[in-house]
Amino acid sequence: MKLDEIKSLLDKVGEEYIEDLKDFLRQPSISARGEGVDACASMLREFMEKAGFRVEVWRMKDANPVVYGELYSSSSKTILLYGHYDVQPPEPLEEWSSPPFEAVESNGKITARGAADSKSNVMAIVKAVESYSKLGLAPSVNIKVLFEGEEEIGSPNLSRYVEAYKDRLKADAAICFDGGLDPKGRPELWLGLKGMLYVELRCRTARVDAHSSLAPLIENAAWRLIQALNTLRSPDGSILIDGWYDDVRVPTEDDLKLLEEVDYETLLAGLKSHFNLDKFLCGVERVEAVKKLLFQPTCNIAGINAGYTGPGVKTVLPRDAYVKIDFRLVYDQNPYKLLENLKKHLKAKGFEDIEVKALNFLEPSKTPPSAPIVRAVSIAASEVYQSKPQIYPNSPGSGPDYLFTKRLGLNSVWTGCAPPLSNAHAPNEYTTRDAFLKGILFVSSIMENYGCIEY
Amino acid sequence: MKLDEIKSLLDKVGEEYIEDLKDFLRQPSISARGEGVDACASMLREFMEKAGFRVEVWRMKDANPVVYGELYSSSSKTILLYGHYDVQPPEPLEEWSSPPFEAVESNGKITARGAADSKSNVMAIVKAVESYSKLGLAPSVNIKVLFEGEEEIGSPNLSRYVEAYKDRLKADAAICFDGGLDPKGRPELWLGLKGMLYVELRCRTARVDAHSSLAPLIENAAWRLIQALNTLRSPDGSILIDGWYDDVRVPTEDDLKLLEEVDYETLLAGLKSHFNLDKFLCGVERVEAVKKLLFQPTCNIAGINAGYTGPGVKTVLPRDAYVKIDFRLVYDQNPYKLLENLKKHLKAKGFEDIEVKALNFLEPSKTPPSAPIVRAVSIAASEVYQSKPQIYPNSPGSGPDYLFTKRLGLNSVWTGCAPPLSNAHAPNEYTTRDAFLKGILFVSSIMENYGCIEY
Repeated sequence: MKLDEIKSLLDKVGEEYIEDLKDFLRQPSISARGEGVDACASMLREFMEKAGFRVEVWRMKDANPVVYGELYSSSSKTILLYGHYDVQPPEPLEEWSSPPFEAVESNGKITARGAADSKSNVMAIVKAVESYSKLGLAPSVNIKVLFEGEEEIGSPNLSRYVEAYKDRLKADAAICFDGGLDPKGRPELWLGLKGMLYVELRCRTARVDAHSSLAPLIENAAWRLIQALNTLRSPDGSILIDGWYDDVRVPTEDDLKLLEEVDYETLLAGLKSHFNLDKFLCGVERVEAVKKLLFQPTCNIAGINAGYTGPGVKTVLPRDAYVKIDFRLVYDQNPYKLLENLKKHLKAKGFEDIEVKALNFLEPSKTPPSAPIVRAVSIAASEVYQSKPQIYPNSPGSGPDYLFTKRLGLNSVWTGCAPPLSNAHAPNEYTTRDAFLKGILFVSSIMENYGCIEY
Repeated sequence: MKLDEIKSLLDKVGEEYIEDLKDFLRQPSISARGEGVDACASMLREFMEKAGFRVEVWRMKDANPVVYGELYSSSSKTILLYGHYDVQPPEPLEEWSSPPFEAVESNGKITARGAADSKSNVMAIVKAVESYSKLGLAPSVNIKVLFEGEEEIGSPNLSRYVEAYKDRLKADAAICFDGGLDPKGRPELWLGLKGMLYVELRCRTARVDAHSSLAPLIENAAWRLIQALNTLRSPDGSILIDGWYDDVRVPTEDDLKLLEEVDYETLLAGLKSHFNLDKFLCGVERVEAVKKLLFQPTCNIAGINAGYTGPGVKTVLPRDAYVKIDFRLVYDQNPYKLLENLKKHLKAKGFEDIEVKALNFLEPSKTPPSAPIVRAVSIAASEVYQSKPQIYPNSPGSGPDYLFTKRLGLNSVWTGCAPPLSNAHAPNEYTTRDAFLKGILFVSSIMENYGCIEY
């Protein structure tokens, strides 16, 4: 049993692996402002070479590098593993218990920006392969890994990389290793991701801001923007734009069946307690609430600003107002098509003056529950974590999964080894030494199980 | 003719007066954040003492100082002049052609925050009195001046000062010297001011901000606030709160007659060109538009903020949103009563969770067109500016005029010497050396004319 051998190996070299993880965490790679991204890609390349990968660093103009690695075995099957080495900005710094790029360990907890999202996932893949190498073993499947450096800014260039290297990326299935464990310590598996249309709407009503005494005569940009916004969405969250739901193909019967098996009560109770909620916006509970969470297209105001927002009294009539909106999309909505619907809607409602700027497009993705890779990951999860994995037919979040499912035509599972409630995107993000070491086993087990599944 | 003597004097000392004005402009006095206010009051006291006033600086707890001055002549009549030495915040700084507190002069234009609103008005009063002193003359009327330091934050403490110093402030009429010239260079006279109710509404929907993937479950505070805002006002500007218009007593027949005499075409054309407007929000033109401007109660969003408003993509679900609203009120609406109406409205519409914080209350004011002070100011305006003044039965703006009309029982005219379209409350606010020097003559002429009117 290769997995037992790797487990024994980890008893000997686990400490060394954890030190490598900490070095990786100490290297900033903040894609939002380009900080340390190149240095982090180089460091990752070295770790991968040490692990036994044949590595290439792909570079495209105006894009962060992709670190690509291959390891061929005698298998006829190939798995493509995706991850990202970039991290969110660490701010607000004052809320961190230790500096975000020092990777301070205390009681087995390693605190750092990127510890959970997603450097421990990346390193688990690298160290799984390194373990095979150290043991002189070959995995039961050919391995390709693609680590990008722009996931935290919406993967704006990954589609160009995937298009350019399409032939190199040929595989039989994909794993996006960028997730983690649920509050009870069970791996979560996502069989699809929501898409995204991120827009900025801007309204201008005059050449300059005005004294608010002119309110009877001059249109206030904030009021006008609010009137426009009010035509987009009902208070219950449903979207009022013509044709918005035309291409929605989920949930399927299979999706709903899968949903029934999920321990959604733990998920929902955790959310209510963390956010201090009496009830959910959608007005339903239990499985119906999870259904909304996973399959409802959303129109979220991520930010709005106009006029004077400092302390005290200022009586200005703002001539300029803007709002950032993320629309999350479900299978098989198309962000490019829906951007046109949004523009048409604003025009039809008399808001043709409102400027629409699209900042990000992600298509939704879907992998059928019956796919062999789903089975392989499930078995691996049970094997390593000794509990039933939580298999979600879709994720409430978004990501570039569609590049694997739609562009490369692969079935794909999102999963990972981050610990529960690990403060991703927030201060005091952490992983644990246990979560990381188990992650190495999880990756190894996925490779073994996928290599052995007959299909 | 005292006025001719003052005019000759200005040829000699005008340059000195302008340098004093620039020094005054270089002293920040941003009441919204308390910046430089005390220093500015001290500087003003010195200017007034130099001018010949007997000066007192009145101080009350948690309030900016009032600088009060008296100058007694042998007249049986007393005029109370009001002004303010505080200024609006200068932001956005990047839109200024020269720093807001450097008072850079170019082609006779002096650019500074407060140049028009209202330090050149304050200084015109001071320099008018200084001119009498320099010439060894006495004005034809006793003079009391009250300069406050909180007008730009809605004069929250002036009523306490007026109440406490009621006896000292006894007079026969009031002039609020805080206005300016119309686009054709004619003084504008306002025979009443709108009132004000300034509120901040705040909505909170969760304990912390959430990842926007949770949008189906967690109420977005920005959306909820926008839904509430949408119940307050029609797109045409009318206010949808029960009972809002119950106490409106204007325009009267006299008001409308006065309005017909105003050169509103110049006013309206000036606004359209300055703000680059095709049409007015109210949907009407000519005298009907001026009627709206002067007598329509308004609900203006002065500022709104929620979520992430920096560059690029961030997918956050804000748990907190707030908006600043100024409601302008017309005679005889009561801001305290209407605050209750607003709270009742939000409750009735299901928004009882939205927190309402009132930041300012100003009652509307009204002075009859037939009052002697109106006649005195009109004659002075014709004398100094060689053109018919523009007498408006009401102002679109707000101020503490009600303290003079309602609390002290005086007739009161708002006027001033700021140049037309001088960017008050906006970047690149300015006055001109000509506007300032004429203002000194205007103040002098008002005092002479009011001293001589029989009533």
